[in-house]
Amino acid sequence: MASPTPTLLLLTFFFFISASADPDMLQDLCVADLSSGIKVNGFPCKDAASVTSLDFFSQGLANPGLNTLGVSLSRIDYAPGGLNPPHTHPRATEVVFVLEGTLDVGFLTTANRLISQSLKKGDVFAFPKGLVHFQKNNGKVPASVIAAFNSQLPGTQSLGATLFGSTPPVPDNILAQAFQTSPGTVKHIKTKFQPKK
Amino acid sequence: MASPTPTLLLLTFFFFISASADPDMLQDLCVADLSSGIKVNGFPCKDAASVTSLDFFSQGLANPGLNTLGVSLSRIDYAPGGLNPPHTHPRATEVVFVLEGTLDVGFLTTANRLISQSLKKGDVFAFPKGLVHFQKNNGKVPASVIAAFNSQLPGTQSLGATLFGSTPPVPDNILAQAFQTSPGTVKHIKTKFQPKK
Amino acid sequence: MASPTPTLLLLTFFFFISASADPDMLQDLCVADLSSGIKVNGFPCKDAASVTSLDFFSQGLANPGLNTLGVSLSRIDYAPGGLNPPHTHPRATEVVFVLEGTLDVGFLTTANRLISQSLKKGDVFAFPKGLVHFQKNNGKVPASVIAAFNSQLPGTQSLGATLFGSTPPVPDNILAQAFQTSPGTVKHIKTKFQPKK
Amino acid sequence: MASPTPTLLLLTFFFFISASADPDMLQDLCVADLSSGIKVNGFPCKDAASVTSLDFFSQGLANPGLNTLGVSLSRIDYAPGGLNPPHTHPRATEVVFVLEGTLDVGFLTTANRLISQSLKKGDVFAFPKGLVHFQKNNGKVPASVIAAFNSQLPGTQSLGATLFGSTPPVPDNILAQAFQTSPGTVKHIKTKFQPKK
Amino acid sequence: MASPTPTLLLLTFFFFISASADPDMLQDLCVADLSSGIKVNGFPCKDAASVTSLDFFSQGLANPGLNTLGVSLSRIDYAPGGLNPPHTHPRATEVVFVLEGTLDVGFLTTANRLISQSLKKGDVFAFPKGLVHFQKNNGKVPASVIAAFNSQLPGTQSLGATLFGSTPPVPDNILAQAFQTSPGTVKHIKTKFQPKK
Amino acid sequence: MASPTPTLLLLTFFFFISASADPDMLQDLCVADLSSGIKVNGFPCKDAASVTSLDFFSQGLANPGLNTLGVSLSRIDYAPGGLNPPHTHPRATEVVFVLEGTLDVGFLTTANRLISQSLKKGDVFAFPKGLVHFQKNNGKVPASVIAAFNSQLPGTQSLGATLFGSTPPVPDNILAQAFQTSPGTVKHIKTKFQPKK
Repeated sequence: MASPTPTLLLLTFFFFISASADPDMLQDLCVADLSSGIKVNGFPCKDAASVTSLDFFSQGLANPGLNTLGVSLSRIDYAPGGLNPPHTHPRATEVVFVLEGTLDVGFLTTANRLISQSLKKGDVFAFPKGLVHFQKNNGKVPASVIAAFNSQLPGTQSLGATLFGSTPPVPDNILAQAFQTSPGTVKHIKTKFQPKK
Repeated sequence: MASPTPTLLLLTFFFFISASADPDMLQDLCVADLSSGIKVNGFPCKDAASVTSLDFFSQGLANPGLNTLGVSLSRIDYAPGGLNPPHTHPRATEVVFVLEGTLDVGFLTTANRLISQSLKKGDVFAFPKGLVHFQKNNGKVPASVIAAFNSQLPGTQSLGATLFGSTPPVPDNILAQAFQTSPGTVKHIKTKFQPKK
Repeated sequence: MASPTPTLLLLTFFFFISASADPDMLQDLCVADLSSGIKVNGFPCKDAASVTSLDFFSQGLANPGLNTLGVSLSRIDYAPGGLNPPHTHPRATEVVFVLEGTLDVGFLTTANRLISQSLKKGDVFAFPKGLVHFQKNNGKVPASVIAAFNSQLPGTQSLGATLFGSTPPVPDNILAQAFQTSPGTVKHIKTKFQPKK
Repeated sequence: MASPTPTLLLLTFFFFISASADPDMLQDLCVADLSSGIKVNGFPCKDAASVTSLDFFSQGLANPGLNTLGVSLSRIDYAPGGLNPPHTHPRATEVVFVLEGTLDVGFLTTANRLISQSLKKGDVFAFPKGLVHFQKNNGKVPASVIAAFNSQLPGTQSLGATLFGSTPPVPDNILAQAFQTSPGTVKHIKTKFQPKK
Repeated sequence: MASPTPTLLLLTFFFFISASADPDMLQDLCVADLSSGIKVNGFPCKDAASVTSLDFFSQGLANPGLNTLGVSLSRIDYAPGGLNPPHTHPRATEVVFVLEGTLDVGFLTTANRLISQSLKKGDVFAFPKGLVHFQKNNGKVPASVIAAFNSQLPGTQSLGATLFGSTPPVPDNILAQAFQTSPGTVKHIKTKFQPKK
Repeated sequence: MASPTPTLLLLTFFFFISASADPDMLQDLCVADLSSGIKVNGFPCKDAASVTSLDFFSQGLANPGLNTLGVSLSRIDYAPGGLNPPHTHPRATEVVFVLEGTLDVGFLTTANRLISQSLKKGDVFAFPKGLVHFQKNNGKVPASVIAAFNSQLPGTQSLGATLFGSTPPVPDNILAQAFQTSPGTVKHIKTKFQPKK
């Protein structure tokens, strides 16, 4: 089609290993017991006798992960024109390595300074903890990166979706005042971020 | 004037004590030497012999602060209709205590759930580390809070200002795609967030 | 006697939010499940589906609190002449904001230096982690403060009460030797700190 | 001898290694450069080329110590009747190993519970971080311990000396009110803790 | 070829970003000032005004890196038969992502249990902090991985080289006793690990 | 027998207190409940009402230990000629105090520099976190040390035993390549480290 319509979020996340654990470790291993009814900061540990090498291994899809290791890794794929829109990771710094394609990336400091860069295959870039950042594939071919985080559970808060697509919604007048725009514009943007039913 | 135009940011911040320091302390006191030419994670320490009780004290304006103490406090005032627009603190949890007036407050989880509450004088509310949150004075009289942070330097990233008012600017097409709106709307919003010259 | 007798502890503590959690968080929220039979460092988490905004809110009395957030807040009221006697918080720095009245405050360094200050409404003062400190209302009207701590559970050890009112008691001869006074004086002081039955 | 006079502080401290550093290390070694004019949280590092094995070694007296290692060790000697009077370490847990003699030891929780024990040669006991504790040699022969701390700079605040011997002094009326005793008793105790001139 | 000669270390390390910083950050950015004469735990910060996007960027060779970010990334290339021999990272967990080829990897727990796995392109595996581990390319084509660490300066201690190739050398009799072998065997192995002159 | 054959591991470990806990404490005490079926990072806590002074005390053998205290202590005995062979503690710095006898000790940096020292009774030496180190009694009489660690669970990985005695075994060709020796030599060394059956 002729349309230059913005192509939002033509990207795929594969969380390989949600390894994890940012407080210091107190044992060699604490593989997450995801079936435990008990919830703690992070996860309880599986019994050591039932740990195998597969707990440390992943073939491209999320796996139970390694509790307490303080690191995680994901792969992100971007279609041509695809944007990983402005977002934060509340609990981690991110470093990306470009596997293929090209990307324009940037982060914003608390002094509202934009620090941006164009990346190609093999390049590496860092996004400091908690700061707003984005990646855009302005190229004509797909791009992909490996992203490393220094937390087992960095969290991701995508700003458009959280502000305009939350449940319950953020009141229109707050968003209009925050972005200095009209309630009508806010209502229109909200229609694009309807939570899935 | 007749206008019901949203009153953005009719609020005042007084940072009383930028106390500070989140890595563990290694001495009783490390008062920040703001005049040092050396920069480290946090601040170098003043000579202990020149420390006085005034280093730990503030009368309502920012003071040199206490390096390495891992906590800070601020007072925020809201005019009627005033909004502290959606923002994050990349390095701290915040707890507010309402000194006077009423406030509608909320934060958003990484699952895009809004957790909101109406507060009156004497009420207390917590905003977890790194998550997007806001406070609005929907009352007819001024409101004010004391806000406590578990970092000496929590940082504040106001989303409207950082996305639409950064230097250099975030490209229009990225913002249009991110908020599913037109480049014209983006340009219009940017005029409201022109960086001061 | 006709009495200017010292008025000990004419003060009231309201712990609003025992928010909490000093090791790094590994999720957005971990609201304390105080009914869990399991005990860990801090508290286990409630199921996320049962979390509401009231878990982050307090109206002036202790609430279940927010596990893992690394901060807490309390209000302290002082009658005229009231003293918050020398005490420590083993796990936190404290910053106070004076809501009303006047206070004479101080802390002691490990070099036995007293750092003291007179405070009035709106003033702010910091007490570094673990050091002995006190606040006295030498005014003629009530005083009150908001106190912020960089731990969910700072702990409070009041020195008079812990040394002279513990269960079982610290032996008289140890206290006499420690304070260079007679066993008789120690016994007399202990009668004032009898643990409640 | 006839005298029941309390024998205060018949003990000797040898700080062997003030090893040190509680924030995580970022290199193999960061030997403290005590001659540096720069002060930071902990100490700046010596140039690696000038580090020798003697930096990690001590023959029974304080040495420059090892910056950033997060641990320290001291030896304490107690004459018969000697008391290490109630004190806190604001920044560390302590574990003692009895080298010779016998000791009665105890610590107090924030719930004012005394946890005490009699120790003999080869016994080990732990005092949790920040809590008030003491050791008394009730035996007829000298005693000594090795004490290990999980901080390079644990700090020591001896309660009698800090409350009754500080510079400037804590006001008499505050101490009288805090310990529920007369100003005369306070003045008398203060004469025993006169700061050295 | 006929030769069964062990092919040691046919691998190449590119440290892209030694991003870094494991104690919590106290500001948005603290780009390492590698030219500073001052040494601290980690590095002092460059002046913020001289920071550019190139400080966060790397094109395949070590760069000055980002101080205080708590993460680093490297690329490792393995020739056919190449071995990354048993080693530890004293200050980090490692997670690898296979870019191409196949690898046999393993780590050893403190209970001397070997946890090993065969990896192919796109697979991911984790090596917990501080434990001995290795990777071997048993395939016929080159292999490469991206390795992520949750420390800016994880450190690498290769066991063969550090035990048999140190300066000054570890005494022969200690190594013979440690590995239950003859001094002659130790001397022979040491010839292979001669430090470069 | 006349033989000067290397006497491996003529040493005894008594772990007195595996006190412990490296993430910050969130309460005064969290005595490990070793009978709990729940596993977390470290250990769950016993009910406070069942805690006694014996939980903090040890008479020379391992005890249940004190969870969350971040420190541990052990005694090590060395027969004449005895070697504590090259090993690492993945989670702690170690400081030793010589109780009797003499010892030759050393550690290796990641730059493969050996830092070694001869110690006699009363001497103290530090081994930085995670680095390979050893102690040898080259004297004619027994030696012993107290070793302090800044972790409740430092872990010990003895390099000979983990490389040549693991279950399942590390493949011969990997060890031959790593130590630049023949598979025959590897097989021979492995016979000395047969896991106990």
